Amino acid sequence: MTALDATHDPVLRSWVESANDPASDFPIQNLPFARMRRAGSGEPWRFGVAIGDQVLDLRLAREQGGWGRVATAWLAPLAEGDLAAFMALGPGARRGLRAVLSAALREDSERRAALASCLVPQAAVDYALPCRIADYTDFYTGIHHATAVGKLFRPDNPLLPNYQWVPIGYHGRASSIVIDGTPLRRPLGQLKGPDDAAPRLAATQRLDHELELGFLIGAGNAQGEPIAMVDAEEHWFGTVLLNDWSARDVQAWEYQPLGPFLSKNFATTISPWVVTPEALAPFRVPFERPAGDPQPLPYLDSPANRAQGAIDIVLEVGLQTPRMREAGLPHQRLMQSNFRDSYWTIAQLIAHHTVGGCNLGAGDLLGSGTQSGPGAGQGGSLLELTLGGRQPIALANGETRTFLQDGDSIELRAHCERAGTRRIGFGRCEGHVLAAVKAA
Amino acid sequence: MTALDATHDPVLRSWVESANDPASDFPIQNLPFARMRRAGSGEPWRFGVAIGDQVLDLRLAREQGGWGRVATAWLAPLAEGDLAAFMALGPGARRGLRAVLSAALREDSERRAALASCLVPQAAVDYALPCRIADYTDFYTGIHHATAVGKLFRPDNPLLPNYQWVPIGYHGRASSIVIDGTPLRRPLGQLKGPDDAAPRLAATQRLDHELELGFLIGAGNAQGEPIAMVDAEEHWFGTVLLNDWSARDVQAWEYQPLGPFLSKNFATTISPWVVTPEALAPFRVPFERPAGDPQPLPYLDSPANRAQGAIDIVLEVGLQTPRMREAGLPHQRLMQSNFRDSYWTIAQLIAHHTVGGCNLGAGDLLGSGTQSGPGAGQGGSLLELTLGGRQPIALANGETRTFLQDGDSIELRAHCERAGTRRIGFGRCEGHVLAAVKAA
Repeated sequence: MTALDATHDPVLRSWVESANDPASDFPIQNLPFARMRRAGSGEPWRFGVAIGDQVLDLRLAREQGGWGRVATAWLAPLAEGDLAAFMALGPGARRGLRAVLSAALREDSERRAALASCLVPQAAVDYALPCRIADYTDFYTGIHHATAVGKLFRPDNPLLPNYQWVPIGYHGRASSIVIDGTPLRRPLGQLKGPDDAAPRLAATQRLDHELELGFLIGAGNAQGEPIAMVDAEEHWFGTVLLNDWSARDVQAWEYQPLGPFLSKNFATTISPWVVTPEALAPFRVPFERPAGDPQPLPYLDSPANRAQGAIDIVLEVGLQTPRMREAGLPHQRLMQSNFRDSYWTIAQLIAHHTVGGCNLGAGDLLGSGTQSGPGAGQGGSLLELTLGGRQPIALANGETRTFLQDGDSIELRAHCERAGTRRIGFGRCEGHVLAAVKAA
Repeated sequence: MTALDATHDPVLRSWVESANDPASDFPIQNLPFARMRRAGSGEPWRFGVAIGDQVLDLRLAREQGGWGRVATAWLAPLAEGDLAAFMALGPGARRGLRAVLSAALREDSERRAALASCLVPQAAVDYALPCRIADYTDFYTGIHHATAVGKLFRPDNPLLPNYQWVPIGYHGRASSIVIDGTPLRRPLGQLKGPDDAAPRLAATQRLDHELELGFLIGAGNAQGEPIAMVDAEEHWFGTVLLNDWSARDVQAWEYQPLGPFLSKNFATTISPWVVTPEALAPFRVPFERPAGDPQPLPYLDSPANRAQGAIDIVLEVGLQTPRMREAGLPHQRLMQSNFRDSYWTIAQLIAHHTVGGCNLGAGDLLGSGTQSGPGAGQGGSLLELTLGGRQPIALANGETRTFLQDGDSIELRAHCERAGTRRIGFGRCEGHVLAAVKAA
């Protein structure tokens, strides 16, 4: 795991003044990457680094020169919008570039004048997926989610016996992953009520979100060669927010025996800003199992994982209805949870995924599974918050919701804060619901 | 669906004499594509077309010239080994090139002398995957398999209530798909016997094959826009054999509630020859449901699908143990089944996959699921043939098998034959088992 260095110093300030706002997601201690271009410009996609409410356009920054030979080579693939090529340079390039960019953006940097012309306001850029997502795997590390949902699907058997031993996961659909802000169409699917003689094709009536993190893989392994726990985090390139949209009625009817399929594969939204492991380093915490739970098998265990395998990340979901939007009201927070409650760590997901020889590759995405907290009202999905749709949520403007209605917008957010550090954030991961196409 | 034309005439003969052998998989009526190059040559990959025991190298053939402007443009991406670019030309290019190649390889072709220099013996080529497999979905269309396996996993509940309504499928792992002849390493995984207090990490003791077909998608759909039944087959580019290797002990412990994961994702083998829908046209048969079974919902139904949605393809599995190999014995056939017994058609898989808005793309692969026949001894996996490992198979040389041992080779084959047609075949899909890596 990454040691803390000068780039983490909480007293560091940037010449980009908005980055020094304590409420900003993007202080100089964060420095996440996104694939972007000026909105409506038709420019080639390139990477930018968030700083306050601005983006440092790395294509423009590279053209300014003065980076030295090594950092210029690191900037080349990012200037071209090619994250896979940057990943191929190894985690050392990512760490090295962090130090270089931190120095260039620091309050006392001599590069201030040259780089000021490379800033674009975040409000004036479009984002794209950071790379071609090769294979997408969704895990199920939220034990409070697994228990709550298990109760709804299998009242007599909520948490299956394998849960505390196996980091449960399944393969998801890579092609339908979309970037923040992309609307999603309410899916059609087979619906069958308990008393219906036969299913029918109709638009889902139980459209839901799921609050997750997504972990981008930067370097893979050869087929047949597992990744050991001690090496696992070197394969982790960065972290995004992930909304695993779900059609609960479709899911209930289709999911046995091979798992969710059409109920999940119509769209998955991720946030544009890829937060690096280095930015999260100050927020690492011990990985601890509740008393009485089994300890992980040796292939899922390491001293470093026990010492600081978990990460303290506050996660939250906001909802904005069309009426709220018309009234100028922002998203209303529905819940908060914390990724430190995850039952498995990122290193464990990587070690488990590859233990049978499955080959990960650069650009793969691993979803964390829904992160619900232990308390009532901490469900990371509407299914949980409404007890399977039985108990509607009352919104501040007087509206209620069980599942999502057309026009509703869901926004995921996350941040890390801890005494003696600068708060960092993940930006947003938003999607809003379009009406279904007409059923055939 | 494709109408029969002159390229299907069973009396057609080729100037490549081995193609006229009635036992050949590759008469002039077949003409499948594979990505290939001369073994050990290090040449760029290019596509070839199988004819008898030879391959017509399309890169060399294109260099010969004389194809005319249109066919030369069709040959260009194939000469470069770029199937996605050929797919992008649409199914008309595939059909047109079939007619052109059929004429060029016919007994009376004037191009015989020029093209003879473009032949390479199949015994002297290496094969690669036909394209980058983007997303891989595995269906479960074999009702006899679903029932037999259901009995083993859920004795009281073998065929779940959704099976006759939903073309059950799940997302598979694209990165670990390998070509015919690639050895596979026995995977490690969590194993837990019914009386074990805890699982342990060990090499699977129940390694199995699954006999499937794979359907390559040639053209996708936009996210949110379902493909209708009447259009579905236009998205189907070709068919290969597919072995969905499975670790049954890992599967039994991990698969609930999200489906198989590590038990399937260590390797999937496909055959190199992509057999086109045109080659299969003479073997189309009506799609009929057993009496008393529900009819498909309207979005999974069409007159053409009822009339000839199914395909008569004989499928078989052969096993060769190391002792058989040392004794010079070929693979011993374990079973035969027929794809016409599939509970769902290719068009139905495509229509279902997209009905919720999921976007297919060129290079996606859909697996059929294990094709077992209705009779005892027609199981498409060892799990079925040995009744869950309780009844070993006796081999002709005196050996027995329940599950696969190190060194064992499995070979899938398939062919179509029907009165008044030329028999066509799929070549082979082979893989053999290497010993596991040592468990940590």
